[in-house]
Amino acid sequence: MIVRPNLHWLRMMFVWRGSVLPSILPQLGVTTAFALVVTLCHGRLFAWKIPLTFVPFSLIGLTLAIFLGFRNSTSYARYWEARVLWGSILNETRSLARQALTLTDDASDAPPFVRVLIAFTHALRHQLRDSDPSGDLARLLEPHEIERVGRAQFKPAVLLLIAGERLREMRTRGQIAPVLVPAMEIPLGRLSDALGGCERIASTPIPFTYAVILHRTIYLYCFLLPFGLLDSIHGMTPVIVAFLSYTFFALEALGAEIEHPFGVEPNDLALGAISSGIEATLREMLGERDLGPKPEPVDYVLI
Amino acid sequence: MIVRPNLHWLRMMFVWRGSVLPSILPQLGVTTAFALVVTLCHGRLFAWKIPLTFVPFSLIGLTLAIFLGFRNSTSYARYWEARVLWGSILNETRSLARQALTLTDDASDAPPFVRVLIAFTHALRHQLRDSDPSGDLARLLEPHEIERVGRAQFKPAVLLLIAGERLREMRTRGQIAPVLVPAMEIPLGRLSDALGGCERIASTPIPFTYAVILHRTIYLYCFLLPFGLLDSIHGMTPVIVAFLSYTFFALEALGAEIEHPFGVEPNDLALGAISSGIEATLREMLGERDLGPKPEPVDYVLI
Amino acid sequence: MIVRPNLHWLRMMFVWRGSVLPSILPQLGVTTAFALVVTLCHGRLFAWKIPLTFVPFSLIGLTLAIFLGFRNSTSYARYWEARVLWGSILNETRSLARQALTLTDDASDAPPFVRVLIAFTHALRHQLRDSDPSGDLARLLEPHEIERVGRAQFKPAVLLLIAGERLREMRTRGQIAPVLVPAMEIPLGRLSDALGGCERIASTPIPFTYAVILHRTIYLYCFLLPFGLLDSIHGMTPVIVAFLSYTFFALEALGAEIEHPFGVEPNDLALGAISSGIEATLREMLGERDLGPKPEPVDYVLI
Amino acid sequence: MIVRPNLHWLRMMFVWRGSVLPSILPQLGVTTAFALVVTLCHGRLFAWKIPLTFVPFSLIGLTLAIFLGFRNSTSYARYWEARVLWGSILNETRSLARQALTLTDDASDAPPFVRVLIAFTHALRHQLRDSDPSGDLARLLEPHEIERVGRAQFKPAVLLLIAGERLREMRTRGQIAPVLVPAMEIPLGRLSDALGGCERIASTPIPFTYAVILHRTIYLYCFLLPFGLLDSIHGMTPVIVAFLSYTFFALEALGAEIEHPFGVEPNDLALGAISSGIEATLREMLGERDLGPKPEPVDYVLI
Amino acid sequence: MIVRPNLHWLRMMFVWRGSVLPSILPQLGVTTAFALVVTLCHGRLFAWKIPLTFVPFSLIGLTLAIFLGFRNSTSYARYWEARVLWGSILNETRSLARQALTLTDDASDAPPFVRVLIAFTHALRHQLRDSDPSGDLARLLEPHEIERVGRAQFKPAVLLLIAGERLREMRTRGQIAPVLVPAMEIPLGRLSDALGGCERIASTPIPFTYAVILHRTIYLYCFLLPFGLLDSIHGMTPVIVAFLSYTFFALEALGAEIEHPFGVEPNDLALGAISSGIEATLREMLGERDLGPKPEPVDYVLI
Repeated sequence: MIVRPNLHWLRMMFVWRGSVLPSILPQLGVTTAFALVVTLCHGRLFAWKIPLTFVPFSLIGLTLAIFLGFRNSTSYARYWEARVLWGSILNETRSLARQALTLTDDASDAPPFVRVLIAFTHALRHQLRDSDPSGDLARLLEPHEIERVGRAQFKPAVLLLIAGERLREMRTRGQIAPVLVPAMEIPLGRLSDALGGCERIASTPIPFTYAVILHRTIYLYCFLLPFGLLDSIHGMTPVIVAFLSYTFFALEALGAEIEHPFGVEPNDLALGAISSGIEATLREMLGERDLGPKPEPVDYVLI
Repeated sequence: MIVRPNLHWLRMMFVWRGSVLPSILPQLGVTTAFALVVTLCHGRLFAWKIPLTFVPFSLIGLTLAIFLGFRNSTSYARYWEARVLWGSILNETRSLARQALTLTDDASDAPPFVRVLIAFTHALRHQLRDSDPSGDLARLLEPHEIERVGRAQFKPAVLLLIAGERLREMRTRGQIAPVLVPAMEIPLGRLSDALGGCERIASTPIPFTYAVILHRTIYLYCFLLPFGLLDSIHGMTPVIVAFLSYTFFALEALGAEIEHPFGVEPNDLALGAISSGIEATLREMLGERDLGPKPEPVDYVLI
Repeated sequence: MIVRPNLHWLRMMFVWRGSVLPSILPQLGVTTAFALVVTLCHGRLFAWKIPLTFVPFSLIGLTLAIFLGFRNSTSYARYWEARVLWGSILNETRSLARQALTLTDDASDAPPFVRVLIAFTHALRHQLRDSDPSGDLARLLEPHEIERVGRAQFKPAVLLLIAGERLREMRTRGQIAPVLVPAMEIPLGRLSDALGGCERIASTPIPFTYAVILHRTIYLYCFLLPFGLLDSIHGMTPVIVAFLSYTFFALEALGAEIEHPFGVEPNDLALGAISSGIEATLREMLGERDLGPKPEPVDYVLI
Repeated sequence: MIVRPNLHWLRMMFVWRGSVLPSILPQLGVTTAFALVVTLCHGRLFAWKIPLTFVPFSLIGLTLAIFLGFRNSTSYARYWEARVLWGSILNETRSLARQALTLTDDASDAPPFVRVLIAFTHALRHQLRDSDPSGDLARLLEPHEIERVGRAQFKPAVLLLIAGERLREMRTRGQIAPVLVPAMEIPLGRLSDALGGCERIASTPIPFTYAVILHRTIYLYCFLLPFGLLDSIHGMTPVIVAFLSYTFFALEALGAEIEHPFGVEPNDLALGAISSGIEATLREMLGERDLGPKPEPVDYVLI
Repeated sequence: MIVRPNLHWLRMMFVWRGSVLPSILPQLGVTTAFALVVTLCHGRLFAWKIPLTFVPFSLIGLTLAIFLGFRNSTSYARYWEARVLWGSILNETRSLARQALTLTDDASDAPPFVRVLIAFTHALRHQLRDSDPSGDLARLLEPHEIERVGRAQFKPAVLLLIAGERLREMRTRGQIAPVLVPAMEIPLGRLSDALGGCERIASTPIPFTYAVILHRTIYLYCFLLPFGLLDSIHGMTPVIVAFLSYTFFALEALGAEIEHPFGVEPNDLALGAISSGIEATLREMLGERDLGPKPEPVDYVLI
């Protein structure tokens, strides 16, 4: 996630990092160079003057704009749903921590229970980013659990099961009245929803065919465009082609980036910062004072 | 579902499988050939020069684009809702498995209960795809249940009832305190919602008349288009007609495909992989080690 | 609801039933005839040549398209919400049937309770379609209840109350533990939501003024259009006017039809089939074998 | 709310009431008169011929249409959310009435409890419409409650508290088992949500700046339009300006009207009819026969 | 939040405060001045006449409009979600106050419990606006709690924990039956959701790259526009450029403002008024008479 103060309107024209320009530069260069060549050849391909006007572009442009809009709304909806799911992990782990501390008769069982929730949060992040959870698991779980979770294919699901087992222990040891247990099952169930929701977003992309159709339309459009503009705007053709191509390519690239919100690109969700925040607030609820350092953006990007 | 790595922008122009091109090739060919004929005859039908300009296409194009947009958003919403429903089957069966393992006094009753949930998942997939569930039922249920479910018209609904009966057994045998039973009724109810939601999407298409109006507008548009373009872009007419027709036909075909997300076409949901995944995670929660093979895409398509 | 197999793309151009053509034929005829007259008079009204170009239509067309889009999305949202509500009636009655069979100590109280739910379903359908519920009530209820419900103004609401009374009986007779009753109150509450939701859609149309503004804009547009097209497309004017008018009129008519999804027109919800399906699945859960005939579409339409 | 039968397509062109025409007539007249003057002066302002073509209007028109669309969708969403909230008041009061009648041991405590719910409904309507609730309160509450509610600033919230107090009484008098009380707390909580939701819509309009930007763009557009049309459509300029202005002004006015759905204008919600309906269904559940007259539309408008 | 009566349509053209004009005046001035210079130089840059027509602007304008639409819808959705979350704080604190007063055996424990909820509300407002909560905390909490909360990094979360602790006290002192506690855990959990939801909106902006792409497109568009208009509308160029730039810049600025709805700018949410309102209604439920002054808008703005 890019963290950046409000910029002056002029400064904003020259932002580099966070503008997806780096990743679309090659195709933008090729398109503009092609437009330049077309302009210099006066729209002739060998001897044939390609007869195009703005009309086809106006007809295609409409559909293109609507589908760029659809694509971006859909990608953004995935991004935001992913954010909401991580928000709900924060909300439900807090609720569970509060319940472990206040529905029980004494608060001594809460810390190990809450540590399982923290481990769940980190394990989910590692699963989504395909990184190694063993460091986080080692500092939060009992030895036999580390082994059990480390072996598991669906680690966060097993951690929720372990949380349930700790709750069973509290109940069988009489630390919590059975009549209060259903109240704790509600947030546990919602953690299961959040886990499954993240797995759903990670495993099911927008149907690939949308990307193909949109991509083809955009690129055909931009490569044919110089022929359509040349007769009316002459020497400005490459400028306008570059401008339009930038808008289209950048929106396509941004859509592709935030469609998979769990990555570590500049516009992806700051899962590292979010899970540190969850750990900090849960530790604070347990009465700990040292909540660890606040995550700091590196080069404006929070990961 | 098509599983595919990020492709280079040039590679993406030549994707074949997953581009719906195969299914729209006939009409695309006919339209383009017609445009070619019109171009060669200079827009004359017998002796009459059809007098058309771009104006009507610009007027119609707007409505067309907006309705293509509506159609696609609606189809995609159905696709995504179907995916969310299957996601909720994962979430709720996991919750039920956790509860069967931790709300009871010993975990011995959990495996047969969880196997009913796995059978429910497979039975729903078979119902939606109209395939034969008997293999999956046979390996998961007791003999008398196989007979009972096999005979049933609404198999997944009967399986949920059987899950409820197993829960009743646990309760009457004192394995679970009555006060904890309502906590398990919540995910059972949500499985009922997910089942009914899938049946709703499968049985109620987008009103057929939308498809008719959209289809007619698209095809009339594409067949009249060469007359409207000829006078301004001459020899490029067939190229542009092919381009525009591809965009329109492809979007219409894709909409029609993902509107029914439970099929086995390349852009449909990978129900097979999803239900294997549910079975694997539930088995893991029961402590089993052999979770079966991970589903592998065949020719980039996961079914 | 129109049930129809996938049609060939050519076949689809000539669909009659389900294309709303029948209901818009008069105005389509008038508009086209008027365009023909205008073309034959060369755009003169008496001696005055009406001076119009495509420009105003391009300006108006934009707003028109956006509002047609709004109207259709809103109508479709009502249609789909109505379908979801009926889906939730299926889900919740199934949940209640499962609970009546498995939360009780023996299953003997379930059948009369479930029959009240079936009666609720049919009574709601009759209320929404303004048809006579007495046949369905008579075969499902006790005599004194038939009288009580028959007299009631809000029949489905009274049937939910009767369901609650049967649940009270089970509780006071010790058939169900009080601690399990709240689990059954949840789906009962949701049936109340579904009932109220259907009543809301039935009683509150989209504000009438939207229809008025849209209708006027469409008709003024289509009647002025020939004057604007004549000078550029001459003899094709009536063809294009007919084409555009068809698109606009058809979308308006379809919007008006599905805005009220509880009727018996071809594009309305198949409430009859849905409620038969609910009855069949509930009967099957009670162990009955004869579930009645499956509803069959008549002339492709399922009512 | 305007209640009106389906009109013939021709009849619909001449609807007066419910077409917001009355409220936009002044500005429509001014704009059209101005267009007429511009036409008669041949677009000259003093000696200067204002040089405008349709181009700027085409560029602005796009943004304008999209924002009119946004405005209307947002206004309609508020209108519909308000309707849904009132629908949920119906649903939850019915659920509470059913519970008061069937979760208790005898039904004698239900009528006074239900009367508080009816009073809540009317009090909320009066609060939203800023009308005097004392008549309704007087016929439904006990004397000391009338005084207490009459003095309150947040009357419906206090009525929900009184409902809670009656429930406490039932519980302490042993009329309802404590284990059943949480089931009644759920609909009580939802009534609190509906109350707060209505207050939210009433107190938080769409940001005023949207209205300002949209209003300015519309009016500048309509006043500059005659200069842009004159050279191409000459004498038809005032007609087209009147047509476009009507569409824009009417949509803006309708948006402003339904943005505040709790008023008593023709397109506002029929809160009077809705709350009478709630009272009637609740009384019927209590076994009363005289449910009061059904609300009748006056001059097609139901208030 | 700007509070303003319905204005006359003419008056609305000259609104200053609340029109974001103040904040976009510099760039609007620069753009218009540049258009003026271009007009005076007849579109020449040094000796070169920049060859541009309206065509590129028509092509770009479409995408621009759709993305302005996306941006505004998204910003507004954040604004409205933030409002809904604060609405839910009102609803849930009212529910908790009702429960503290009516689920307990006597009402003496309610006031300190409710005061913690009021403190939660104010602490959340201070956290979101980065202001000092100590004044509000000091008047609402016990001394040892003031110290504990003051030290906390996540103050509202700790206050919810304290609310839970007071509930535990009521339960252990026998003031509330354990079977009723789960009913109070539901609104407590929802307050946790509202808290987390506000933190989510505050900490996760719309991906920065959207703002960059949109900003660049708007400004390039407006600076190139005079060259494209000059040849067709001559002296009116600066007027139209100013008009279009105003629309674009104002919508961009408004989007940026309401994207962060917790600030203190004129179009932000009136968190001060909302939290005073919550305090007033909760105090009234406790039977207090002096509810404090109603918040008054200063210069039409409610903060």
